[in-house]
Amino acid sequence: MGDIAATVETYWATAQARDWRAFGATLADDVCYELPQTRERVVGRDGVVRFNAEQLGEWSLEVERVVADATQAVSWVRFSDEEEETQGISFFTSAPDGKIQTITDFWPRAEEPPAGREQLTERF
Amino acid sequence: MGDIAATVETYWATAQARDWRAFGATLADDVCYELPQTRERVVGRDGVVRFNAEQLGEWSLEVERVVADATQAVSWVRFSDEEEETQGISFFTSAPDGKIQTITDFWPRAEEPPAGREQLTERF
Repeated sequence: MGDIAATVETYWATAQARDWRAFGATLADDVCYELPQTRERVVGRDGVVRFNAEQLGEWSLEVERVVADATQAVSWVRFSDEEEETQGISFFTSAPDGKIQTITDFWPRAEEPPAGREQLTERF
Repeated sequence: MGDIAATVETYWATAQARDWRAFGATLADDVCYELPQTRERVVGRDGVVRFNAEQLGEWSLEVERVVADATQAVSWVRFSDEEEETQGISFFTSAPDGKIQTITDFWPRAEEPPAGREQLTERF
């Protein structure tokens, strides 16, 4: 039994370091990466490494929160470049050996509040 | 010490049932609810109950996943009405008595993939 929380910390630390060999070592051979918002999927370690290496570009990342139980984890990560910040939320499940078996990523965008609930909220 | 995972299950079950008294009982008096995408905040149990009661409308919800450790939890929930489905991700922290102290909600929207990565992914 591995430690999925520690594996997820390594996943993000190696992504930030662009150490794609160590990043790949966190992943099961047949890892499945999904993006529900765009209905995209990448299957297999090599493809997931390549996808991340090509998409991460110049972004710097900071892990805001990791929540994990014995076999699952979720991370909330802030990505920033010189111009903007975006946030990514990733659900992970663990393979029996503690490597990452599945990743489901969400990329919520900044937006304006819907009209009609100003009286219920404050802004920050 | 409460059980934040069980409290989160109750939070969603009572929201689905529109049992706002029981829903409110899952929340600390000074609960803080935040929406980073719109930079909205609601502080206090009564306000958070009212916000949920007014926003949930006709949606039916189904809990897809809950991940929790001793003091934090994350839920991934599918909301549907007759026309569409949307997904909500909520990060929770626990008060010492196990009630919910903070909620941070994300509402990622369906969108088209960015151009130029078709060769890296399949669609589902």
